[in-house]
Amino acid sequence: MKLAIAGVGNNTSALVQGIELYRSMSGELLPGVARPSLGGIQVTDVEVVATFDTSPIKVGKPLSQAVFASPNNYPDLGMLRPGGEAAVSTGIGDPANADELSKVTAMLQERNAEVLLYSLPTGLPAMARAYCEAAIAAGVAVVNCTPDPIAGADDLLAAATEQGVPLVGDDLQSQMGSSVVHGALLALFEQRGVTVIGSYQMNCGGNADFDNLRRAGAGKERSKHNALRQKVGDTQNVTVVPSAAFVPYLEDRKVAHMSIEARGWANRPVRLDIHLQVQDSSNAAGVIIDLVRIAAIARRRGEGGFPVAATPLLKSAPIVEDPRCQADLAEERLAALTDAEA
Amino acid sequence: MKLAIAGVGNNTSALVQGIELYRSMSGELLPGVARPSLGGIQVTDVEVVATFDTSPIKVGKPLSQAVFASPNNYPDLGMLRPGGEAAVSTGIGDPANADELSKVTAMLQERNAEVLLYSLPTGLPAMARAYCEAAIAAGVAVVNCTPDPIAGADDLLAAATEQGVPLVGDDLQSQMGSSVVHGALLALFEQRGVTVIGSYQMNCGGNADFDNLRRAGAGKERSKHNALRQKVGDTQNVTVVPSAAFVPYLEDRKVAHMSIEARGWANRPVRLDIHLQVQDSSNAAGVIIDLVRIAAIARRRGEGGFPVAATPLLKSAPIVEDPRCQADLAEERLAALTDAEA
Amino acid sequence: MKLAIAGVGNNTSALVQGIELYRSMSGELLPGVARPSLGGIQVTDVEVVATFDTSPIKVGKPLSQAVFASPNNYPDLGMLRPGGEAAVSTGIGDPANADELSKVTAMLQERNAEVLLYSLPTGLPAMARAYCEAAIAAGVAVVNCTPDPIAGADDLLAAATEQGVPLVGDDLQSQMGSSVVHGALLALFEQRGVTVIGSYQMNCGGNADFDNLRRAGAGKERSKHNALRQKVGDTQNVTVVPSAAFVPYLEDRKVAHMSIEARGWANRPVRLDIHLQVQDSSNAAGVIIDLVRIAAIARRRGEGGFPVAATPLLKSAPIVEDPRCQADLAEERLAALTDAEA
Amino acid sequence: MKLAIAGVGNNTSALVQGIELYRSMSGELLPGVARPSLGGIQVTDVEVVATFDTSPIKVGKPLSQAVFASPNNYPDLGMLRPGGEAAVSTGIGDPANADELSKVTAMLQERNAEVLLYSLPTGLPAMARAYCEAAIAAGVAVVNCTPDPIAGADDLLAAATEQGVPLVGDDLQSQMGSSVVHGALLALFEQRGVTVIGSYQMNCGGNADFDNLRRAGAGKERSKHNALRQKVGDTQNVTVVPSAAFVPYLEDRKVAHMSIEARGWANRPVRLDIHLQVQDSSNAAGVIIDLVRIAAIARRRGEGGFPVAATPLLKSAPIVEDPRCQADLAEERLAALTDAEA
Repeated sequence: MKLAIAGVGNNTSALVQGIELYRSMSGELLPGVARPSLGGIQVTDVEVVATFDTSPIKVGKPLSQAVFASPNNYPDLGMLRPGGEAAVSTGIGDPANADELSKVTAMLQERNAEVLLYSLPTGLPAMARAYCEAAIAAGVAVVNCTPDPIAGADDLLAAATEQGVPLVGDDLQSQMGSSVVHGALLALFEQRGVTVIGSYQMNCGGNADFDNLRRAGAGKERSKHNALRQKVGDTQNVTVVPSAAFVPYLEDRKVAHMSIEARGWANRPVRLDIHLQVQDSSNAAGVIIDLVRIAAIARRRGEGGFPVAATPLLKSAPIVEDPRCQADLAEERLAALTDAEA
Repeated sequence: MKLAIAGVGNNTSALVQGIELYRSMSGELLPGVARPSLGGIQVTDVEVVATFDTSPIKVGKPLSQAVFASPNNYPDLGMLRPGGEAAVSTGIGDPANADELSKVTAMLQERNAEVLLYSLPTGLPAMARAYCEAAIAAGVAVVNCTPDPIAGADDLLAAATEQGVPLVGDDLQSQMGSSVVHGALLALFEQRGVTVIGSYQMNCGGNADFDNLRRAGAGKERSKHNALRQKVGDTQNVTVVPSAAFVPYLEDRKVAHMSIEARGWANRPVRLDIHLQVQDSSNAAGVIIDLVRIAAIARRRGEGGFPVAATPLLKSAPIVEDPRCQADLAEERLAALTDAEA
Repeated sequence: MKLAIAGVGNNTSALVQGIELYRSMSGELLPGVARPSLGGIQVTDVEVVATFDTSPIKVGKPLSQAVFASPNNYPDLGMLRPGGEAAVSTGIGDPANADELSKVTAMLQERNAEVLLYSLPTGLPAMARAYCEAAIAAGVAVVNCTPDPIAGADDLLAAATEQGVPLVGDDLQSQMGSSVVHGALLALFEQRGVTVIGSYQMNCGGNADFDNLRRAGAGKERSKHNALRQKVGDTQNVTVVPSAAFVPYLEDRKVAHMSIEARGWANRPVRLDIHLQVQDSSNAAGVIIDLVRIAAIARRRGEGGFPVAATPLLKSAPIVEDPRCQADLAEERLAALTDAEA
Repeated sequence: MKLAIAGVGNNTSALVQGIELYRSMSGELLPGVARPSLGGIQVTDVEVVATFDTSPIKVGKPLSQAVFASPNNYPDLGMLRPGGEAAVSTGIGDPANADELSKVTAMLQERNAEVLLYSLPTGLPAMARAYCEAAIAAGVAVVNCTPDPIAGADDLLAAATEQGVPLVGDDLQSQMGSSVVHGALLALFEQRGVTVIGSYQMNCGGNADFDNLRRAGAGKERSKHNALRQKVGDTQNVTVVPSAAFVPYLEDRKVAHMSIEARGWANRPVRLDIHLQVQDSSNAAGVIIDLVRIAAIARRRGEGGFPVAATPLLKSAPIVEDPRCQADLAEERLAALTDAEA
C-alpha cells in the first residue's frame, strides 16, 4: 500500500519506526496492533513513497534522518536503516501558491501514491485545504489527522465524493487517548445510572503539539467534545483542556488527568480519578495505520467521500445521522473489514 | 412489592434509607437511579415486610433503629421516621435448626413476601443455603447479594426451577464498583488493540465487609475474576485483592486503586491508573433495587430458576453459555424490562 | 484584635465563618488551627470592624449577606447570625481618586482598626497600592493576600518602615496548598539524593480566582516559583500552572495534580504523583488568621516594615538575605510568637 | 572499603550493579547518589570481598551470575563483567550449626572484610542473629537491612559495644520509600495545623519480598510505624500494609498508594493522595551504600555499638532517647560525616 505523507513530525516518526519494528517481528503476535490485517492489507504492507514538509531542517533529508530532526522528540527505536526511504520534497510553503500545489499533485501521481496522510501541525486550515485539493486532483485518498476541517468542509467532501476520492477525517481518536477513556467512562456512568455532577480532563505533554495547542486549543477542544458526544448525550458539565501545560521533560509522552464526580444510590457521592500516560505519537500512529488502510480499501473499491467505517477512529467524523446510530453502523462496517487472521 | 430481608447490615440501611429519600423527591429526576421503573415497579413501590438477623443488638429493634446498630456505619440520611417499619425477628441462628427454618418460611408466607433478599456477611455458606431453602419452601423468590453459592449451587437452582421460584445470584456487581470499572477498561484496551502486560485492583474500606474479607477473601476473589471475565477473555495477568486493608476512618466508604500497564503502537508503554471512591453500601443498594424487582417480576410471571436479565447486575451468574454471549442476551432482556418512563 | 478587610470574597467568607465556628467550639481542640494563640491573641479574639468592596451587589449589605453574594461560592456553614457585623462601605472604585483614599483612611482610624487585610482579586496592582497607602496614612498595618506587589514594592516598604507600620506580604502560602506540598516533596528528593529530572504542578478550581488566573496567571506563576525556591535551590525543570482549568462544579474547591520524575540509585526511575484536594478559601483563611495576628503584634510593639516571622506563611516575602537562611530565622521568630497553650 | 554480604538477592544486585555503573561515570555528577563521599569513602571505593547465600542455585556461582538467579528480578543494567567478583560461598544453612558459623567468621577475617551486610529474606530472626554473632566474633561491623532484630536485640548490641564492633540496624529507611514520603507529609500536616482524621499506606510489588511479606508482614508493619513515629507523634489513625498484593508483572518495582484525610480551617476537608513508583531494590541500595560506609567509618575509628548518624537512614534504630530529639542529633552527625566535595 503506497502512502504519501505531508508533515514529518512525531506521528510520522512513530508510524514508520513502528512498521519497521513489526517487520522485524514477523510471525509473532504484534503488541499494540488492533487489526493486523484490514481488508487484506497487513500492517507491514504499508510503504512510504513520498513525504512533504515545510521545515528547512527536514526538507531534503532522508526520512530516516528527518524523523529525528527538531522539534521531533519521539524516541529512536533503532529500527530505521540509514539512507533508504523516500527523500523529503519541498512542501507547499505558501498554500495559495498554485505551482506548489500542482507539484504535489504531480509527485503523488508519479509515485503511484494511494493515500495522502495530512499530518502537519494543527492550526493551519489553509494548508490542510491546499494539500487536500492537490490530492483530490491526483485522485489520491486523504487522511486528515488534525482538527483543521477537511472531511468537515462541505465543499471538499462534495468534490471528493464526486471524484470518487475517499476523504477520512477529521482529527483522529487516539488508540488509547483521553477522549477514548473519558468517553467510555462517562458512558459507563450513564449506563449504570450514576448521575454525573461534573467532570474534567486536563492533558499535558512535552512535544510541539502541546506547545501549539496552548495558544490554538479552541478547535481541539471542540473536537474533543465531539469525540465525547459519540459516547454520551451531553457534555455540558465536562471541562476539557487539550493542553493544560507544556512540560518539556515529558518529551513525546502525554499525561492526562481526568476526574468524574457523581451521585449514586441515595444521592451519595461517587468519584473516579484517572491518570493516563501514553507515548503521544504512538497513540496516533496506532490509529493512522488503520485510517490509511481504510482509505486505501475505499479507493481500491472506487468508493469516494467519507467511509463510515472510519467513524470510531475519528474525533470529528462528518455527521451523517445521530452520532450514536452512526457509531453502531460504523462499528459494524469496521468489523466487516477486519480480517480474522493476520 | 413486598420484600423480606435477611441481614440488617449497611446494604439494608442504604436500601431502606434510599427508598425513603426518593419518596421525598417524588416528581423529580432521581439521582443515582439506573431504572426508575422496572416491569412496572417503581423504586418507591418496594416495601419491607419482614427482616431477619442473628445479632442480639439488632434483633427485636424496629428497622429504623436496627440499621444504625454496630457495626453498621452507613450514614444516617435523616429520612427514617422512628418506629414504623417491620421489627426484626429472630433469625436462623443455627442453620441446621429445622425449627428456625420453618419459622422463616411461615413468616414469609404470613407477610405475603414476594422476594427474600439474602444479605448476611460473606462466608456463611450453610446460612445462605438455609435461608434459600426456607424461601423456596414458602414459594418466595431469592436474591443473593453474597458470593456464597445459591444460584451457583446446582441442587438449589434445580429445586427452585422445579418449584417455579426465581433464584437471583450470586454476588452482585456493584452499581459503580471496581469490577464494573476495571472490566470496562480492560475491555477497552482489548478493543483498541493495546496489549495488556498486567493489571491490579486493590480495594480497601472501613465497614465490616472489609474486616471479614481480609480473612475470607478467596471466594470473593474468584467472584471478582468471574465478573471481569464477563468483559474480557483472560484475567491471568490481573491481580485482584478484595480487601487489601481494613481502614476504619473510611467507615462505609470504599476506595479502589487499579492500574493497567500495556503496550501500544510500536510496543511503547501505556499506563492507566484509576482511583475510585464510593459509598460502599449505596453501591450495593443501587443494584439490589433492580435485582429484587427482577425477582418479583419473574415470580409474578411464574418463571422459576435464574432470570437471565439479572446477569449484567451480578458478578457470578450461573453460566448458561459463553459468558459474553449470555451478556448480550441478558442486556437485551434487561432493556426489555426497563420502562422508558418513570 | 480589630480587623478591617478590603475585598469581601471567598477568603473573607471563610475567615469570618471559621472564627464563628471556633467560637461555638470554645474549650475544645480546634480542628484545622495551627496556632490557637499567637502573641497572646486567640483565633476567636479577631473581630471585623470595617469592610470595603467595589461590587455593587456586595456594597451596603451586612457582612453576613455580602459573603454569600455572587461570585462567592464558599459554602454556608450556618454559623453567621443575620444582621450584626459591620456593613460594607463604598470601596476605592478608582484607585487614583484621592477622595476615596482619604475616606478609607478616615474609616480605618474611626473604627480603631489595627490591621487592614487586602484581599481583592489578583491583578489590580494600582488598587493594592492605593489601599496600602490609605492604611499607612492611618497608621494601620497591612496584610496582602495577593501577588500584586506591596511588601515587594520598595517605596511602600520604605514608607511603612519609616512610619512604624507593619507590611505583611506578598501572596500567602496556603495552609496546605500546592506550593507547600510541592516544595516539601522537592526538598525531600534533594535531601535523599534522588535526582529530579522534571516536575509539574497543575491547579484547577471553580471559584473566581481560577477564572481570573487563566488570563492573569503570570504574576501568580512567578510567586509560586518563589515559594518553591524557599525549599529547593533550583526550579528550572519545574512547570507550574496556577490555573490549568476553570471547573465550575468544583465551586470553591481546588484540585492540584503534581508529578515528580527522578532517578534513584543506579539511575533507576522514581516517580511520585500527588493529588491534593482542598477547600481553597479555607486554605487561605487558615493562614490569614496568623498573618493578621502577626501584623497586629508587630504594630502593638511599634515595629514597622516587614516582620520576618511572617516569611514561612508567604509565597513572596521581601528577600532580606538568602531565602533558606531567612527561612530558618523566620521559623525561629514564628515559634517564639506561638503560645504553647491556647 | 571491603564489604562482605550475606544474601545475594535483589538488593545486592542493585548495589553491585550500581557501583559498577558509577565507576563508568567517573567525573560526572552521579544521579541518585545522596552522598558521593562519606567520611572520605567514595561510592566507588566499596568492593565486595565475600558473599554468602543458602540457595543452591546461587551458591558456587560468580557474583555476576548469582545476582540474576531466580527469584531475583532486578534488571540487568549490562554493567557486570563476567567472571571476576568473589564467588558465593556456602552460607549458614542451619543457624544453630556452630561449624558453619565459625566458617563465616574465618572467611570474614581471611578476606579482611570491614563490614558484613545482612540482607537475607525478612522473617529469619535466628539466621540474622547467627550472622551477627559470626561477624562480632570476627571483629567485623554489621549492617542489618531487615526488620529482624539485631541492633534492636539488647544482648547483641551490648556484645558489639563491648567488642568495639559497630552494629547498624534495624530495617533500612528506603532512599525514597513510602515511609519517608508518608512521614514527611504527615509531619507537614502537623506543622501546618491541618488536623489528620486518618491515613493509609498500601504497598505492592513483584519481587520475593512482597510475596514473603504477605505472610510475615507483622514485623514489617511495626517497623514501618516506628519509621513514621520518627516524624510524627502519633500514628494510631494510620493504617500501614507492607504488602497489600504480590503483583508479578511489577517485578522488582514497587508501587505505594497513600492517602491522608484531614480538616483544615473551619473544619473543611483536605485530602492528599500519593502514588509512588520506585525500583524497590535501588531504593534499598541507595541507602545501603551509606550504611555500610557509616559502619566502616565507625569501625576504623574504633567506635563500637550503634552509630547515631545512621538513625535517619533506618526504620527502627535503637531508641536512645525521644525519637525526634535523636533524629536532630543524628542529622547533625550524618551531616558532619558527609564530605562537601565528591
